[in-house]
Amino acid sequence: MGSTERIRNVARRVAKWVKAGHQIVVVPSAMSGETNRLLALAAELEPAQRTDGIRRELDALAATGEQASSALLAIALQAEGLGSISFTGWQVPVRTDSSYTKARIESIDGENIRQQLQQGKVVIVTGFQGIDADHNITTLGRGGSDTSAVAIAAALQADECLIYTDVDGVYTTDPRVVANAKRLKSISFEEMLELASLGSKVLQIRSVEFAGKYRVPLRVLSSFTPWDIDLAEEARSGTLITFEEDEKMEKAVVSGIAFTRDEAKISVLGVPDTPGIAYQILGAVADANIEVDVIIQNLSKDGKTDLSFTVTRGDYERTLQLLQDKVVPKLGEGTKVVGNPNISKVSIVGIGMRSHSGVASTMFRTLSQENVNIQMITTSEIKTSVVIDEKYVELAVRSLHTAFGLDGDTRIEVPQRNG
Amino acid sequence: MGSTERIRNVARRVAKWVKAGHQIVVVPSAMSGETNRLLALAAELEPAQRTDGIRRELDALAATGEQASSALLAIALQAEGLGSISFTGWQVPVRTDSSYTKARIESIDGENIRQQLQQGKVVIVTGFQGIDADHNITTLGRGGSDTSAVAIAAALQADECLIYTDVDGVYTTDPRVVANAKRLKSISFEEMLELASLGSKVLQIRSVEFAGKYRVPLRVLSSFTPWDIDLAEEARSGTLITFEEDEKMEKAVVSGIAFTRDEAKISVLGVPDTPGIAYQILGAVADANIEVDVIIQNLSKDGKTDLSFTVTRGDYERTLQLLQDKVVPKLGEGTKVVGNPNISKVSIVGIGMRSHSGVASTMFRTLSQENVNIQMITTSEIKTSVVIDEKYVELAVRSLHTAFGLDGDTRIEVPQRNG
Repeated sequence: MGSTERIRNVARRVAKWVKAGHQIVVVPSAMSGETNRLLALAAELEPAQRTDGIRRELDALAATGEQASSALLAIALQAEGLGSISFTGWQVPVRTDSSYTKARIESIDGENIRQQLQQGKVVIVTGFQGIDADHNITTLGRGGSDTSAVAIAAALQADECLIYTDVDGVYTTDPRVVANAKRLKSISFEEMLELASLGSKVLQIRSVEFAGKYRVPLRVLSSFTPWDIDLAEEARSGTLITFEEDEKMEKAVVSGIAFTRDEAKISVLGVPDTPGIAYQILGAVADANIEVDVIIQNLSKDGKTDLSFTVTRGDYERTLQLLQDKVVPKLGEGTKVVGNPNISKVSIVGIGMRSHSGVASTMFRTLSQENVNIQMITTSEIKTSVVIDEKYVELAVRSLHTAFGLDGDTRIEVPQRNG
Repeated sequence: MGSTERIRNVARRVAKWVKAGHQIVVVPSAMSGETNRLLALAAELEPAQRTDGIRRELDALAATGEQASSALLAIALQAEGLGSISFTGWQVPVRTDSSYTKARIESIDGENIRQQLQQGKVVIVTGFQGIDADHNITTLGRGGSDTSAVAIAAALQADECLIYTDVDGVYTTDPRVVANAKRLKSISFEEMLELASLGSKVLQIRSVEFAGKYRVPLRVLSSFTPWDIDLAEEARSGTLITFEEDEKMEKAVVSGIAFTRDEAKISVLGVPDTPGIAYQILGAVADANIEVDVIIQNLSKDGKTDLSFTVTRGDYERTLQLLQDKVVPKLGEGTKVVGNPNISKVSIVGIGMRSHSGVASTMFRTLSQENVNIQMITTSEIKTSVVIDEKYVELAVRSLHTAFGLDGDTRIEVPQRNG
């Protein structure tokens, strides 16, 4: 939520739903910029080492952002003539584990919320936070408000969980890259999970996981839609993430194309092809808390092989250094580490891929026609990902979008620049 | 607390006390301007009528200010190498009644704090707030952090409660009015209570009441003192509010002079001198939630009398209107309401007044010599207050300060203005 004007609009939107007979629980995020402001203050004071004692205080600090926006929304709702009450994470309570700054929800007691709903009140619950078994305040990490909303909807067995965000739904791909990307009216939960894990930023992956675990129907819609549009229209807007795979969905083989830009590839060349060699390399990387994404091992030749893997670009230099210092000396002569810090991953996702063959080959053919060299491939039941040079990412996404019949009408005007 | 730089200085000051072997509990206020910022946001959203439902949310909102500064201080202390942990009001818990925005502390459970102290940690407790019996967040009202600090000191039976404020102690009077006002090294609790209720802004009156009830020795000192001054020097600085009346204190008949500027006087003239007449007038005023301070009733003459009383200047117009509309019509012909919105109250306070006669007469003589007309007088065992025209307030305070031997060396340079 941004300014008080935006808070007032949220209140009016909620009032519209209440007047139509719905019981509503709202999980607001902090006001825009507030979490960053608070954490910037902490950064000025923090010691070099971030201990658990520091993380505990960062959570107590960051949790105030949602507490403030929740109280303000409760005030705005009362100004609209509705009964309303705000609950913090501990007042619900939302119980989590003790992993400060990235806690996981363990249970939610819906009783206090239900009581207030029965009294006709709109209940506001601070997202992003909970308490652990020792009554310490915890937070769920960035985007945690979405996860809170889904978890609360699950605890209350809500009919639907609406996620108001800064986009008006889930698109076949990022409309900033493909101007005629289409908004999907619905998408299966499994596809959404893949898209979220493959780089789509619409929903935090843990909120999608939670929705899947408890089968909470989610709808992603835009917080920029005017609050006073027709309720029925609003209820149909955005993208529904559903557990029912209807016929219409079966028609599209590929539902969406996701991509990431912040990856890097590292190859260890000429390593002895002996059992445990992958562990020797990747174990050292994992021990340094570096997350590895795609891994491929080449066919062995003369008892030697090459192992390549991708990491987040921010970890690139550190990983190279680590391999040079700790791993290469153990692998013997002829072993060499090379890398490319400018690669991207492009993925096609669709539950139709289960029953349609030839999807992957269409992908490879399309990229080949555009002279895009595929460096790595990884697949699962409903997705195929390729690692390519970053400079080809827009070209690859656009050509695949067309090849899989996802192009709609051009929606977004690309601004013309003069000079 | 102001900027992060000020928070860091607080941490360093606390570290100094800890290194000298003290167990420390810190009760920080919100960062400077934060409470006002939050309440200004609420003011943009609030409905005209401030119900209990609104007040509940204002408290949940305002309480975030202290929660944030407490977490930041805990981080700063850890950066100084000290163990530290912050507790919100509900984590202690600090239990209050349910009077949102002006709750009263009912009890404090010191167990959680004691446990952490025993582990060698500095414990930070969010001031200004608590929870009621139903787990709603409450706040104590402006200046509530002082009250929290005293109440926590009482619960823990602390040796001393240090109140760091923006002045370096309690003065014989406001140094902005009397340049050679002296800082008192100590003052009795009873005198401090009178001074606080008579307009001295150094301490919130409820914190002084609490200190009295639980006999907590309080020391008022300056948060602007450099954090690295000698500890023994800091421990002797400021003003100690004590329960022991030593001989030295007995020597000063008057310890301090307090004054208010924001008062107004209202007189109802020519009212029938019948039983219950004061109630008829003042009852109507009290029913309108207007607080009355000084009241005098003149001697009756021909069965008629005059009743005068003072109210806060902000209530002046409303009180006049109320009397004209509701009270005068019932009192019959000849009754008239007049007022003066520009009066002040000047008070001399001292426990020496108990055993020394002639203190009041010295006050009246001094004011008479300066041609200051006394409009009302009210006394108690250890204070005498006079109501005078506001334009004489500085003159009255300065001449009384000299007359009662309170002048010290000139401390404050009055800036010279040219032209």
